Amino acid sequence: MAVLTETENKADAAGTVPQPRAAVLAMPEYHPPLAGRDALRLDFNENTLAPSPRVLEKLQKLTSEGLTIYPERQPVERIAAAHFGLSVDQVLLTNGVDEAIHLMACAFLDEGDEALICTPTFFMYDVSISMMTTGLRKVQTDDTLAFPFERFLAAITPRTKLIIVASPNNPTGATISREQLLAIAAAAPQAVLMVDEAYFHFHGETTMGDIGSVPNLIVARTFSKAYGLANLRVGMVAGDARLIGFLRKVSSPYNVNGVALAVLPEALADEDYLNWYILQVHQGRERMYTALEELGVRTWPSASNFILMDIGPKHKELVAAMRRHGVLLRDRSTDPGCDGYVRITIGTEEHVTRGIAALRASLAEIGWTPAEGRARA
Amino acid sequence: MAVLTETENKADAAGTVPQPRAAVLAMPEYHPPLAGRDALRLDFNENTLAPSPRVLEKLQKLTSEGLTIYPERQPVERIAAAHFGLSVDQVLLTNGVDEAIHLMACAFLDEGDEALICTPTFFMYDVSISMMTTGLRKVQTDDTLAFPFERFLAAITPRTKLIIVASPNNPTGATISREQLLAIAAAAPQAVLMVDEAYFHFHGETTMGDIGSVPNLIVARTFSKAYGLANLRVGMVAGDARLIGFLRKVSSPYNVNGVALAVLPEALADEDYLNWYILQVHQGRERMYTALEELGVRTWPSASNFILMDIGPKHKELVAAMRRHGVLLRDRSTDPGCDGYVRITIGTEEHVTRGIAALRASLAEIGWTPAEGRARA
Repeated sequence: MAVLTETENKADAAGTVPQPRAAVLAMPEYHPPLAGRDALRLDFNENTLAPSPRVLEKLQKLTSEGLTIYPERQPVERIAAAHFGLSVDQVLLTNGVDEAIHLMACAFLDEGDEALICTPTFFMYDVSISMMTTGLRKVQTDDTLAFPFERFLAAITPRTKLIIVASPNNPTGATISREQLLAIAAAAPQAVLMVDEAYFHFHGETTMGDIGSVPNLIVARTFSKAYGLANLRVGMVAGDARLIGFLRKVSSPYNVNGVALAVLPEALADEDYLNWYILQVHQGRERMYTALEELGVRTWPSASNFILMDIGPKHKELVAAMRRHGVLLRDRSTDPGCDGYVRITIGTEEHVTRGIAALRASLAEIGWTPAEGRARA
Repeated sequence: MAVLTETENKADAAGTVPQPRAAVLAMPEYHPPLAGRDALRLDFNENTLAPSPRVLEKLQKLTSEGLTIYPERQPVERIAAAHFGLSVDQVLLTNGVDEAIHLMACAFLDEGDEALICTPTFFMYDVSISMMTTGLRKVQTDDTLAFPFERFLAAITPRTKLIIVASPNNPTGATISREQLLAIAAAAPQAVLMVDEAYFHFHGETTMGDIGSVPNLIVARTFSKAYGLANLRVGMVAGDARLIGFLRKVSSPYNVNGVALAVLPEALADEDYLNWYILQVHQGRERMYTALEELGVRTWPSASNFILMDIGPKHKELVAAMRRHGVLLRDRSTDPGCDGYVRITIGTEEHVTRGIAALRASLAEIGWTPAEGRARA
């Protein structure tokens, strides 16, 4: 929280400074621990290596004059739509999926409306929904971290206007089947169901094919993970043209920058590179699971490019030790139901090898024993 | 508006598809005429040449690995704050000023709150405000297009929560004095006053120095105009740390892409280039005014990098003729009080020369006479 200056305090005392909306005062704030990431970054589920070489080639061809021109989103939306077998009015490119989530809340949630998420999950759902309504309902998983389908369905009410679920989920890696997602959409026809498929590539199952037949379905995809473009900020929502039209209405026509728009077709076209990276993650995930089992660390089944580990009371010590070994992890202990849990990103073969070596050394250094994790379960 | 599919129409008839917020249905939509801009772009008030050469140099040094990393905004906010003599908590970088306007509405406007703007002005104020409240009040200028200070002050009520004014204003080029802006801020202590200084550089007067002493002042700056970075999407809001804190809370931590963050310090540091470009615009503006006076075209005093022209009934013909001559103009006829008005951007010496030549030829081709503009006044 910013410190108030003397002038402001006086004005505050006089009751004459502007007040934000009550929802803004009440909403949570997202503070990702960004500073000092000059290490092996196994903390944010980014691609740990690079995007397709075609991206950098394109970047280096950008002209100085081109930088002065307002970006034009629609031609690239046309390319993205064709890539996914959709029509251009079924697609909106966004300033990362963060913006997509924000636009969903802006378009569909009035104060008093209910929204539904499953926790633990990506924190920005809570941030954006709480900006618009106090009606956020959270369904907590049990200790299996599996999606609590029956309890989730039971939490839908006639006032539910927005449902957001991630599959695979973050930070758990758990998935929701297409059948369950369709059942949720059918159970809440008055609500929009947003399926966040940010980690789709590491899993392979999608509801993208149900766009057109399910009128209340929106699918979000990011280019920040498998495609390796987190720095450029570009995501996508796809869905019924009517719903996408509302999202387009609340977005700026210039929401996606021109560099992202210039390189996105290159990233989409280089499927060989994407498939190579996905295979690296699949193989690395198996190696990491094997290593964690040998070390006695409890984990959960992940269909994504990360694994959640139950470290127990020494979670902070582990993160600090790993940092000394030049590897960043993400402590998820403050997530609901995740006390003592730490997340590790799966990257290329070399990065997984380094991650495993650092884990072995760090767990030994902090004197960790399997009982510390498992005993808590 | 997207065409509804058969499935949707059926669902709509059954009343079972999700509805957006009433405000989203009612709000206006911004459709800038972006396609086919492969010509001399005197339509969007961009820098017509290029940003500082240091920007492209930096761009070409970006690495492939860097593209995979989530952008870190704060170090660049620190540089920007220092550049403007502010502290880092008084500054927020945004995804263009468009996002800054949107965040202002999200942070400060509940349904029923009043917001105040002067028309004609930048259309995105209406879009973002209308997304949050039906309480937008517009004070229309008279035919002088000068800021209607007394009527504007009189339109402030105790329910006014947000005031947005641009100085210089777009599309008029008119300015508001610092004294008038401070009087507005003082008259509405319960409201936030956002002064949009997107075109500051072509004018030279600012209220940036009043940040810290005026607790309800927010100043917006863009890097899309004089700095020539429209393609990259980066703007800035500066103001009281308390107010900026609320805006930061409703923004994503990753709202500005990493390329914009990488090059912004280069653009800020190259003041010689910026000053050269501003001088080009000052000289070009005088030449354009002289040419328009010779041609008998009525104009208004502009402190910006554009001039509004009164063409009258042949406004569409002029824009079409100019396009045939390879020059894009922006027809502002649909702006309130601007029927028959066309805007031309002022760029470098060469671009102004081409603009003037094309204007002379086009006005002759469409058989335009001064009476067609002036007679309407």
